[in-house]
Amino acid sequence: MTMRGLDRETATAQPDIALARRLFDELARRTGTRKGITRASYGLGEQIAHDMVRREARSLGLDIRTDAACNLYVSLPGRTDGPGVWLGSHLDSVPLGGNYDGAAGVLAGLSVVSGFRKAGVVPPRGVTVMAIRAEESTWFNASYIGSRAAFGRLAPDELDSVTRASDGITLRAAIAAAGGDLEALGQGRPGLRPRDPGLFVETHIEQGPLLLARGIPLGIVTGIRGSFRYRHAECLGAYAHSGATPRSERQDALKAVAALIVEMDRLWDRRSAGGEDLTVTFGQIGTDPAEAAFSKVPGKVRFSVDVRSDSQATLDSVRAEMDAIIDAVSARERVRFRLGPLSTSQPAAMAPAAIDALRAAAVAEAVPAITMPSGAGHDAAVFAQMGVPTAMLFLRNENGSHNPDEAMDMEDFACAARVLSRLCLDFGA
Amino acid sequence: MTMRGLDRETATAQPDIALARRLFDELARRTGTRKGITRASYGLGEQIAHDMVRREARSLGLDIRTDAACNLYVSLPGRTDGPGVWLGSHLDSVPLGGNYDGAAGVLAGLSVVSGFRKAGVVPPRGVTVMAIRAEESTWFNASYIGSRAAFGRLAPDELDSVTRASDGITLRAAIAAAGGDLEALGQGRPGLRPRDPGLFVETHIEQGPLLLARGIPLGIVTGIRGSFRYRHAECLGAYAHSGATPRSERQDALKAVAALIVEMDRLWDRRSAGGEDLTVTFGQIGTDPAEAAFSKVPGKVRFSVDVRSDSQATLDSVRAEMDAIIDAVSARERVRFRLGPLSTSQPAAMAPAAIDALRAAAVAEAVPAITMPSGAGHDAAVFAQMGVPTAMLFLRNENGSHNPDEAMDMEDFACAARVLSRLCLDFGA
Repeated sequence: MTMRGLDRETATAQPDIALARRLFDELARRTGTRKGITRASYGLGEQIAHDMVRREARSLGLDIRTDAACNLYVSLPGRTDGPGVWLGSHLDSVPLGGNYDGAAGVLAGLSVVSGFRKAGVVPPRGVTVMAIRAEESTWFNASYIGSRAAFGRLAPDELDSVTRASDGITLRAAIAAAGGDLEALGQGRPGLRPRDPGLFVETHIEQGPLLLARGIPLGIVTGIRGSFRYRHAECLGAYAHSGATPRSERQDALKAVAALIVEMDRLWDRRSAGGEDLTVTFGQIGTDPAEAAFSKVPGKVRFSVDVRSDSQATLDSVRAEMDAIIDAVSARERVRFRLGPLSTSQPAAMAPAAIDALRAAAVAEAVPAITMPSGAGHDAAVFAQMGVPTAMLFLRNENGSHNPDEAMDMEDFACAARVLSRLCLDFGA
Repeated sequence: MTMRGLDRETATAQPDIALARRLFDELARRTGTRKGITRASYGLGEQIAHDMVRREARSLGLDIRTDAACNLYVSLPGRTDGPGVWLGSHLDSVPLGGNYDGAAGVLAGLSVVSGFRKAGVVPPRGVTVMAIRAEESTWFNASYIGSRAAFGRLAPDELDSVTRASDGITLRAAIAAAGGDLEALGQGRPGLRPRDPGLFVETHIEQGPLLLARGIPLGIVTGIRGSFRYRHAECLGAYAHSGATPRSERQDALKAVAALIVEMDRLWDRRSAGGEDLTVTFGQIGTDPAEAAFSKVPGKVRFSVDVRSDSQATLDSVRAEMDAIIDAVSARERVRFRLGPLSTSQPAAMAPAAIDALRAAAVAEAVPAITMPSGAGHDAAVFAQMGVPTAMLFLRNENGSHNPDEAMDMEDFACAARVLSRLCLDFGA
């Protein structure tokens, strides 16, 4: 009897994978650059993606609204009112990134509601697909702008102090250009209350290699790593002749930064061996092209560092230890470090009930899934911190994310969409 | 009797320091940029400097000639023919460099012959001031272009394969623009034979801090360090998400280069402790601004390395050890190094007789001088390798060279010019 019911319901809830396939293709075509794709936060590529989702929602007859920060909400009503299932992710990308990071979560939601619409299925509760703005902090050097703004949680000064790296435009000007409501944002008026979603699920490609290595299509996220970052750090020594300056007289900024990188790697190794969750990445480095030369001891080096952990205690103690390493290296190499602005994000645990609901849906659809942490930050962290019952579904993906070679299999995407459909049919039933 | 002779000759051979002072000022004014001075090899700044020397030589009534590579020779005849004293250095500079590196040697020579001319003194042998082209290999990525060309020793392919870093112009086009004779250069026809100079002395600011530390105005160089260099090396890993890629899965190009830098520094420390002469400098580094991000494991890092020693055996064994370090780091970090073109220069010992002659002149002029090695490469190395009796005179200088803060004291410069005058009066007497 249960089996019969299950069969009938899955038969009527096939997600619309053809729609997703068509929109992925269109995104690649319209937001592709010479290498990879680029959808700048509050820029042209992101706007194209939002306009596409709005167009599809209109043709599906969904309810459409935007909030003050231009986040887009498209909703299919359910049989009864009350908090429903929210399926959301972002539509921006890093510069020269891939087509799936972010977009996969929005298109998965859209394929679910389109599947319901086309099959004439009305789920127990409403389903809202949310296209979130400005998740990729590469652009504005601030985390989770769109989702924080949705909850009315942008700091008042951010609108003017935060600028886009690519063109120096302020966040205020960028949101205004996209049609946002700066007055509401300035006053912190939310477009979304924590009690609106009964369940928020962000579907996202996995940005590491774990699912691929395990041969599993889906991951159910247990928590999101927090971070601390110095994006514009520098080390100052003294330029000197490379052949004529003895070892003892040097103030070599690059030797100092290299020592810092190597010692932070040893710290990482030690902490990992001790069972702590941690990543340490020096992603960017550069001597000054105008002043450095192969025949000069480098007098200045710029670099960035990004440290992540699922434990705030680990983040705090690694930061203290990094300060101590920097003090020791500075004294030894006779250089000075200027770390510049610090940005941080807190670790966020996913809701056990939401994890259980996803796991049950995966079992019901017979899709293999494992639980795992998220090493990357996601808007889901904001929802979790606001008290929304939140979960994340990871999609197997080759070559990592934030690069043109992201490779998500549409078969895996279809598995995720089926799990989400099932979740929507079960939630509130 | 000897004292009387000495007194009379010094009284009539005061170098023309006022001329040098005027020309240093003019050089600073006409080749200064927003920061420091820039005299590109076969570029505008170098040409201005050569034109100035030619103008002064004409007004002093000296013999003037240039060779196929546009090196400039201005000569004062002596009482008898035969190989005389050659006083030379270069007139180009690194980008945003200082006013004295190179120019000091040419202006010292000019102040000597101007002193003779104005006092009506005819030295025993002729004195030739040589303004050498293109010594600073920052521009053309090749060492000693001007002096090698003077001896007909440019490799035939260098004219077309060597290009200027600042604008990509070939050496052939650059020399042609300066009025050189490409046919003669292509055929290796020398403008200067090793037996032409009886003695070649290159006066140059010290590029390290030794004379300043010792409180001595002049250094007499015993030998010039050779080098090996990779100016366009790179390390290739794989871009990956900084938060989601576990330690074990990374191919972090920057971590690998940092390990190389730290291990080469240990090698340097060990070799120095063992008494070997060595410098190791990683002068430039950079991730790709278009691809790297603070939130990506860096997949590519460019860097340069410059290793120098007065011993060819040390250079050879350090290179072998560096290769072994690179192999080990590549295997450990799962990256690949592409070192790119290798450029080398051989160590060159100065001639004992030439060193003695300089030492005797310094004693006669009562100017304190110590003997010391040259950590930097100089055109004098080419003269020594061609069999010319060669010496170098170092001038005390603050803040090193190859930077806008070079600080040579004109008092020290006058001491050097007096020693050179004395040398010219004693040589062949």
